[in-house]
Amino acid sequence: MKESTTLSEAYKHAKYPIVGHGKRNVQVLKEALEQYDGDLDSDMYGSGSIIDEFQERMAELLGKPTAVFFPSGTMAQQIALRIWCDEAGLRKVAYHPLSHVEIHEKDGMKELHHLEPVLLADETRPVLLADVLGMEEGIACLLLELPQREIGGQLPEYAELEAISAHCRDKGVKLHLDGARLFEILPYYDKTAEEICRLFDSVYISFYKGLGGIAGAVLAGDREFTEQSKIWKRRHGGDLISLYPYILSADYYMKLRLPRMEQYYREAKELASQYNQSHAIVTIPQVPVSNMFHVHVEMPKEKLEPILVAICEQTDIGFTSWLREIDEKSCVFEVNIGDRYALLPQDKLREAFLLLDERLRNGA
Amino acid sequence: MKESTTLSEAYKHAKYPIVGHGKRNVQVLKEALEQYDGDLDSDMYGSGSIIDEFQERMAELLGKPTAVFFPSGTMAQQIALRIWCDEAGLRKVAYHPLSHVEIHEKDGMKELHHLEPVLLADETRPVLLADVLGMEEGIACLLLELPQREIGGQLPEYAELEAISAHCRDKGVKLHLDGARLFEILPYYDKTAEEICRLFDSVYISFYKGLGGIAGAVLAGDREFTEQSKIWKRRHGGDLISLYPYILSADYYMKLRLPRMEQYYREAKELASQYNQSHAIVTIPQVPVSNMFHVHVEMPKEKLEPILVAICEQTDIGFTSWLREIDEKSCVFEVNIGDRYALLPQDKLREAFLLLDERLRNGA
Repeated sequence: MKESTTLSEAYKHAKYPIVGHGKRNVQVLKEALEQYDGDLDSDMYGSGSIIDEFQERMAELLGKPTAVFFPSGTMAQQIALRIWCDEAGLRKVAYHPLSHVEIHEKDGMKELHHLEPVLLADETRPVLLADVLGMEEGIACLLLELPQREIGGQLPEYAELEAISAHCRDKGVKLHLDGARLFEILPYYDKTAEEICRLFDSVYISFYKGLGGIAGAVLAGDREFTEQSKIWKRRHGGDLISLYPYILSADYYMKLRLPRMEQYYREAKELASQYNQSHAIVTIPQVPVSNMFHVHVEMPKEKLEPILVAICEQTDIGFTSWLREIDEKSCVFEVNIGDRYALLPQDKLREAFLLLDERLRNGA
Repeated sequence: MKESTTLSEAYKHAKYPIVGHGKRNVQVLKEALEQYDGDLDSDMYGSGSIIDEFQERMAELLGKPTAVFFPSGTMAQQIALRIWCDEAGLRKVAYHPLSHVEIHEKDGMKELHHLEPVLLADETRPVLLADVLGMEEGIACLLLELPQREIGGQLPEYAELEAISAHCRDKGVKLHLDGARLFEILPYYDKTAEEICRLFDSVYISFYKGLGGIAGAVLAGDREFTEQSKIWKRRHGGDLISLYPYILSADYYMKLRLPRMEQYYREAKELASQYNQSHAIVTIPQVPVSNMFHVHVEMPKEKLEPILVAICEQTDIGFTSWLREIDEKSCVFEVNIGDRYALLPQDKLREAFLLLDERLRNGA
């Protein structure tokens, strides 16, 4: 490799990248489609057995009366918030300052639906009961993201969650679950999806995070809610004539990977522990509560980058494809455990961690 | 078949259905994917060679500086209208009363973007220069759908189109093309896509009508326009991590079927002529100007339905899968010519038309 190899290039060509399930390429779809007969009829604008049956199974899994397949979570969640606001005759929704809705959607919720966010908690921790008890009046819906991705995938304790849910019900505030990574937290909570969803009025799940599908989401709730969500889905331009490429891959990878969530969680704890034994590194959370965590390194981004590239060249282990600068002295990256971790040669991984520790101690 | 067979069932099981390319089933996607290597990287939230290269080719084909892939035309067109309205500081857009935006999108344009429609022309004919000359002030954008699907795929004459375009440019009204079936009208106009698009400020095309892809659309225009459209695409929830299932199938079926548009057009004229020779039937347009037309039958829907079912049983020819009632005396159905027409056994088709004529003459 050339000296100018970027971290992203090094990771892309690494023999043993640590993060995720595998490459996001066309083979992912081909593999899924091989499981289905060619003469299976397409869904047609939200109807047909291919979508109906999947939606029924998702409703059952989440313990809700009905579920609707969406092309994206961005669309599904804005719509959920809009429905709850319209029902309450209010415009305010509460969520964490680093919610997907707030930072990754170009303000779609505000620009298209004219809803106003009320931000709870801060960038170091998830929303807790105290935040909810202190909420202002006039809020139609509280959105909780479990786990809170942008802060390393932190979670409130389950009892805290139950108390938040009880309080919201008491106050008539709807509770919506951003469950993009819902299945990834079941082992930590030691609960079923249905048990967790019972605490919420509406639930969104995603098929391309821990499940590793192509794209797509489901929104679940009672029938009146999901029927309204279909109207908004049409308005958003999400009621495609055919969503089956996403539905079939969601179906296939879900069957494949739901049973592996316990393993990913265990491996995440194991890997985080290795990181925490390295000089100048802490993970957040220190002990992961899902398959993910953030790795905080006390070294400037531009100094750490060539170190990770060099270790990748020497050991074939790719720690990460990108670093985000926190300040002049430190940076962070995200780790998600998927199918790849179990396939890593342990000797290579040990060697990579020894080198990482050594380089961080030497400060270069 | 049982006596109670519905028209839709009869058509579905017909050996020789007349309309379209073929069944919309999973094989359509499998066939497209077979053309592409599994190790081709997915697009990632609107970036990557798979989407970039396709967008570049579409921009070139349409003669516009840039093009953006969208999951749906509903999304693409609302966004186009919103951008032109914001730029003009106006809220009004003009279009035909049977535009897709007006009748098939649950008022997304009004509910999400708060734009106001000004309806031009009527349900018997497309928008003409006289309508545009008579337009009220304060209109940001005129949308023309070519061909106008809901009235049988009618078109204004090309000189009329040029005059409308010149007038809009003169008045500072943006002209947007709903080109869901743009390629289907090139043979009649005897123009390239680029020549037609030159008359418009922005253009939308669809990949699952005459081209027969899975889903998806492209919006094309100048760079400032398409860059803004990407922001709105994110807001709408259409900036999926992976759109390649639609992109690859659009690419494949476009290569396959763009060269066949002349053939579909010729066959549409041939078939319309057969319908027009039948008793109590007229097609609109009488001579098609694309691969589509509507068949108006002077017979009540509930009387015609069993006739078509019976002809289907006897000849294996499926004329249509549905009828729409116009009034107590007459009904209509739509015909789109695709790959199927060329494969019809001519003797069966003749037999079916003879039976149809006879049954319509007998009035039962």
